[in-house]
Amino acid sequence: MRTCLESSVPPIYLDHAATTPVDPRVVEAMLPYVREGWGNPSSVYAHGRRARRALDDARDRVANVLGARASEIVFTGCGTESDNLAIKGAAMAARDLTGARHIVTTTVEHHAVLHTVEWLQRHLGFEATFVRVDGWGRVDPAAVADAVRDDTALVSVMLANNEVGTLQPVAEVVAAVKARNPRVLVHTDAVQAGGLIPLDVEALNVDLLALSGHKFYAPKGVGVLYARRGTPLLAQLSGGGQERGWRSGTENVPYVAGLAEAFDLAYADLEGRSAHATRLRDRLIHGVLEGVPDATLTGHPSERMPNSASFAIKGADGESLLLNLDQEGICASSGSACSAGSIEVSHVLRAMGVPDAIARGSLRLTTGSETTDADVDRLLAVLPGIVERVRSAVLTG
Amino acid sequence: MRTCLESSVPPIYLDHAATTPVDPRVVEAMLPYVREGWGNPSSVYAHGRRARRALDDARDRVANVLGARASEIVFTGCGTESDNLAIKGAAMAARDLTGARHIVTTTVEHHAVLHTVEWLQRHLGFEATFVRVDGWGRVDPAAVADAVRDDTALVSVMLANNEVGTLQPVAEVVAAVKARNPRVLVHTDAVQAGGLIPLDVEALNVDLLALSGHKFYAPKGVGVLYARRGTPLLAQLSGGGQERGWRSGTENVPYVAGLAEAFDLAYADLEGRSAHATRLRDRLIHGVLEGVPDATLTGHPSERMPNSASFAIKGADGESLLLNLDQEGICASSGSACSAGSIEVSHVLRAMGVPDAIARGSLRLTTGSETTDADVDRLLAVLPGIVERVRSAVLTG
Repeated sequence: MRTCLESSVPPIYLDHAATTPVDPRVVEAMLPYVREGWGNPSSVYAHGRRARRALDDARDRVANVLGARASEIVFTGCGTESDNLAIKGAAMAARDLTGARHIVTTTVEHHAVLHTVEWLQRHLGFEATFVRVDGWGRVDPAAVADAVRDDTALVSVMLANNEVGTLQPVAEVVAAVKARNPRVLVHTDAVQAGGLIPLDVEALNVDLLALSGHKFYAPKGVGVLYARRGTPLLAQLSGGGQERGWRSGTENVPYVAGLAEAFDLAYADLEGRSAHATRLRDRLIHGVLEGVPDATLTGHPSERMPNSASFAIKGADGESLLLNLDQEGICASSGSACSAGSIEVSHVLRAMGVPDAIARGSLRLTTGSETTDADVDRLLAVLPGIVERVRSAVLTG
Repeated sequence: MRTCLESSVPPIYLDHAATTPVDPRVVEAMLPYVREGWGNPSSVYAHGRRARRALDDARDRVANVLGARASEIVFTGCGTESDNLAIKGAAMAARDLTGARHIVTTTVEHHAVLHTVEWLQRHLGFEATFVRVDGWGRVDPAAVADAVRDDTALVSVMLANNEVGTLQPVAEVVAAVKARNPRVLVHTDAVQAGGLIPLDVEALNVDLLALSGHKFYAPKGVGVLYARRGTPLLAQLSGGGQERGWRSGTENVPYVAGLAEAFDLAYADLEGRSAHATRLRDRLIHGVLEGVPDATLTGHPSERMPNSASFAIKGADGESLLLNLDQEGICASSGSACSAGSIEVSHVLRAMGVPDAIARGSLRLTTGSETTDADVDRLLAVLPGIVERVRSAVLTG
C-alpha cells in the first residue's frame, strides 16, 4: 500500500483544482531572483534595474498570452486579492464617479467573489443580485442581463467553477450585459480556468479578469489582475504606488517571474495539456459512474474543465471518503469548504439544487500534467471498496 | 573600478533600508515547501497537513519573538498590506461598531500609512489629523494625545522612519493616547525597524504592528500583522477565510517559513547585528560629515536606526549622487520617493523643516550584516569626489 502519510510527495495527487505542484522549470526561473537578483525594482541603480527588467519581461509575457497590453496587467499576492481588487476597486470607483451601487453576480462563485460582494453590501451599503444557475451550475446570460439595473456598477461571473468544473458562457454574458447597459463593467474570476482554458481577453471581451499562479504550476502567493485600459478601478492597497498605483507593495519578483514562466509553459502546450487532462478526466468519470453504485456526475456533462471529475455519492460522507483515500495514498477533495474539521454543505451544489443529503457525499478528482493512467487505475480500483465501507459505517454508525 | 552595472551581485550594497538580500539559510528553509511540500494547507489529507504544520510552526516562532500569542499573528503579502489591513481594518471596524470616524497619524509616516489614511478620507469620509514632528523627525507623545478626539478610531505612529532612521517614542505615545481615550487603538508601522530593534508587543503596548520580511533577509512578498487579541478588525481580503478570517487567500507557505527563519535569525543575534550596524553607521556618519563640506546629518543624532546614516548634501542633487555611486559599484538611496525618473522632494524632510533646495541633496546609506569596513572605506573614498563633480555640474549646468 502506498501512502502519502509518510512520503513528502503524494504518490497519487488528484487535487489539482486545490493547488498544483511547482514545475521544476518554474523553480529554476524563480531562483535567480531569490539568490542574486533580489534588488528592489524601484531603486535607481543597476541592481534594482535588473529586478525591474524581470518584472517588465514577466508583464510582457503574461499580456502576450492574454492578448492584452502590458499596461493592463497588475501582479497581486494571490487570486483572492485579484478578485477583491477587481470587485471592490470597480464598485468603489463607480460609486465615486456615478453613484452606482449595485452588483450582479451568481450563486456559484468562489468565496473570493461572494464574500467580497457581501462585504460591499454589509460595510459600504452596496446592493447585490445573485443570479441563479441551472442543475448543471450554468448561468443564463439573459438572466444576468435582466438583473442589470441603471445603477449597476459591476457584473462578476466566473469562467470555470472550482467545485464542479462547469464553464460559464462568459462572452455571451458580456454581450448581453453590455447590450442592456454599456456602462457596466464585467469581471471574470478565471482562477480555476487558468492554464487549461483559452484566455483571450478580446474574445471574452471582459473588463477585468483574475488569475492565480498556483493553479498552473507556479507557487502560491502570486496572482494577476487583467484590467482593460481605461477601466475605472480604485486601488485597494495604498502606499508606494507600485504597479502603476494599482497595487502598492514591494514587488515579489521571483514569484512574478515564476508565474510568467508557468503561464507561458501552460499556453505553449495548451492543446496537449488539455487533451491529456480530458482523456484522464473521462476515464475517471466513466470509471466512477460504472464502478460506484448511486454515484452521479455533478456539473455540466460537456461544458466543464478538462481536468475536473466531480461526483455526488449517495449515502457517503465526503470527508470520510477523503480520509480513506488518503490512507491509500490518494489526495482528493470533497469540493466543499472545509474549515476546522467541520464540513459545510457546498453552496455550489445547493445552488444547483442538489439535496443536502446527497451533497454531503461530494467528491472532486482533478488531474494534472503529471497524472498517469496508472493513477487513474489505482483510484478506480480502490474507490468502490472505500465507498462501500463508508456507506456501511454510516448505516451501522 | 568595480561596478554593479555588470555584476549580478552589487559589490557594495548600502541600501538595506530599501531591501535586503535573502539569507542563504532562509532560502534553504523555503525550498522544501517550493519543491515538495507544496500542498494546500486547507486540504484534509497528509500532504496538505504538512503545509499546515509549516504555517503553524512559523506562526509560533514569529509570536515567540514578539512576545505575542500565535493567534495574534496574521501573515500577509507584504508590509504595505499589513499597514493597509491594520489601518483600514481598524478604522472600518470602529466605524461599524461605534461610529468613530477620525484617525491620528504623523507627517513622516511611510506612504503605506499616509496614503491609506488619505484613502479613508477621500473614499469613506474619515477625518484625519497629521501630527507634526520636530527638526529630527520625532513626534511628541503629548501632541499625539492632544489630537485624539472622542470619535478617534485609531492612532498610527511608525517605530522607525524609513528615510532618516529616526525612532519614535511609540510606548510613550500609546500611554499618552490611552490616558486620553482608552478605546482608541494604536498601530505602529514597524516595517523599517524589524530585525534591528527590539520588538516586544507588551513593552510597546500597541494593538497592531506591521512587519515586512524583506527588511530582515526574507524575500519580498510576505509580511506580518500583529493584532492584539480582541482588537476589532475588519478583514480587507474577503474569501476562503484563511488566517482565521483576517486574510483570505491561499497561504504562501515557502515565504512564511522563510520569514519565520529570518526573523528568528535576526533576533537570536540582535545585539551582535545591532552592534555591527551601529559601528559601521557611525563610521559612515563621521566620515561623511568630515569628508564632505556642507553635509549635514538628517534625523535624530542618537535615537535612530542602528544601520541608518542619512544626510542632506547642500548643492548636490540626490539622483546624480546615486547614479555616480552606481558607476563606482555602490548602491545607495536618496531617501526620497523616485518614480518614473522624476524625484519628488521627500515629504519626511519637508515635514522636518528642511528647505527643499537642501532636501534635494539627500543621501541615505544603510548597512547590513554583510557590510564590511572595506565597504565603508570605499564609500568614504569616492563620495567627496562625486559630490564635488555633482556640485560643479549644477554650477556649470
